[in-house]
Amino acid sequence: MKLTILGCYAATPRTITNPTAQVLEIKNQMFLIDCGEGTQVQLRKHKIKFSRINHIFISHLHGDHFYGLVGLISTFMLLNRENDLHVYGPKGIKELILMQLRASGSYTGYQLFFHELEGTESEIIFEDEKVVVKTIPLKHRIYTNGYLFQEKNKQRKLNIEAVEKYKIDTCYYQKIKFGGAITLEDDTIIPNKELTFDPDPEKRYAFCSDTVYNEDILPIINEVDALYHESTFLESEAHLAEKTMHTTAKQAATIAQKARVKTLIMGHYSTRYGNIELFKEEAQTIFNNVILGDDGKEIEL
Amino acid sequence: MKLTILGCYAATPRTITNPTAQVLEIKNQMFLIDCGEGTQVQLRKHKIKFSRINHIFISHLHGDHFYGLVGLISTFMLLNRENDLHVYGPKGIKELILMQLRASGSYTGYQLFFHELEGTESEIIFEDEKVVVKTIPLKHRIYTNGYLFQEKNKQRKLNIEAVEKYKIDTCYYQKIKFGGAITLEDDTIIPNKELTFDPDPEKRYAFCSDTVYNEDILPIINEVDALYHESTFLESEAHLAEKTMHTTAKQAATIAQKARVKTLIMGHYSTRYGNIELFKEEAQTIFNNVILGDDGKEIEL
Repeated sequence: MKLTILGCYAATPRTITNPTAQVLEIKNQMFLIDCGEGTQVQLRKHKIKFSRINHIFISHLHGDHFYGLVGLISTFMLLNRENDLHVYGPKGIKELILMQLRASGSYTGYQLFFHELEGTESEIIFEDEKVVVKTIPLKHRIYTNGYLFQEKNKQRKLNIEAVEKYKIDTCYYQKIKFGGAITLEDDTIIPNKELTFDPDPEKRYAFCSDTVYNEDILPIINEVDALYHESTFLESEAHLAEKTMHTTAKQAATIAQKARVKTLIMGHYSTRYGNIELFKEEAQTIFNNVILGDDGKEIEL
Repeated sequence: MKLTILGCYAATPRTITNPTAQVLEIKNQMFLIDCGEGTQVQLRKHKIKFSRINHIFISHLHGDHFYGLVGLISTFMLLNRENDLHVYGPKGIKELILMQLRASGSYTGYQLFFHELEGTESEIIFEDEKVVVKTIPLKHRIYTNGYLFQEKNKQRKLNIEAVEKYKIDTCYYQKIKFGGAITLEDDTIIPNKELTFDPDPEKRYAFCSDTVYNEDILPIINEVDALYHESTFLESEAHLAEKTMHTTAKQAATIAQKARVKTLIMGHYSTRYGNIELFKEEAQTIFNNVILGDDGKEIEL
């Protein structure tokens, strides 16, 4: 699992900072999370192939999280994309995008599917053989969801020494990996646990932006490998965080600590601060394992 | 009059090129012409004060000419703009922008006026004491206007030698500048033409993008000081120009020649060409005074 942060600053794009967008590479899929203005240029800058993006998750309909979406969809058209594209986001997103495409007289050569969300409980919105994606209902000025990305490792790991000891034919390996027991020629049954190890733990990544401090999310993000949690302000501006329904660095760290996550990734910094190191310093008074998100940063999870 | 080209490439923003946007400084006003994705960042890059932009002219509703508008309007809000903002563009633009602002729950602290266009004849859409702006109806795949910006120099230039010769009091200078005659104390009438010179010629700038080759615009742009005319393709791709309703470099030069403009500025290049010098070379086979528009180029007119 690899996260590339294309942009992680709040409010307005500037020459040196970009609004929210991330690419999560998970089990060979590329998921785009949020799509602020300029995201398509950031994708090019980081040499991420447009054709590998088939699923886009939008947290909410503030401009710094989705004004780049219509341009990206248009560019996909111009590049003669053929793959289906799935967009997940708040109810209303479909008409906002389609209205703009209609006005430009544009037609897609690819299928564009919108999965509009309006639920207030965590729900599975995407699932295939390798990945599950669930919503993380957040509390912000408008309807907002974070997203939890979870690997699925169905297969147990073969204990090569054991299967060779019992001289089990390789044609049964797949059955064993899926948890099956084996009956030998002398009718002895070898239980699966003697032939396999537990699968690798299923890695989980939680994206939470934008939100007030909200302990309701703790059960959903419990013990995730990495939590990206917005930290728009420092504690010195806690009154602004409350007023605008954002989080401070200290609050984000408190969520990370209470959810016992492995790593906290910070971002969505207000551009009022000259030095983002201050966010890390403040967070680390509460929770130690902090990565300071920044535009262009690649993080192996 | 000074033109700053923020972006002049067709279709999609890239790391090294920007979609259409220009700022025309005329009589101390800043007019923004088109607003592709990323325009607000280009404005910052060129240190153009957001507060000086009060009028935005959008040619048509293709993404590479207006997907940056909603973000710019949102940023104006975040920066607590107070000045009125006027947006001129095709019918439909108001609802496209307002729908997005409504979805984000945003409210402007400034007045936002939309002037929606649907005429097919050239018309005056803005006029104050110093500037007139007219539409230039263009022919493209969707409804499109170019814009003609014209200085107004109402005042004639005082002939200092003459007014001193007749010992005319300075309190009459303003009257003379506005074309008035003067009656001396001995009842002699001095006609205005003896006291003044003709005003400086009124500079005119015509912006024409996107369009097919269209001689109907010649009377409107006749003898302008500078014509920005799109030249998306070279003649070798004339079939694509025809199909997509764009212009070749040679065709743009032919329009410049037939309209007897002083300077042709080229732009809206297809990103298929590695070297834009080819556009200049092709145009100069027809018309000599060519400026190759490019992102970041500042042109004194």
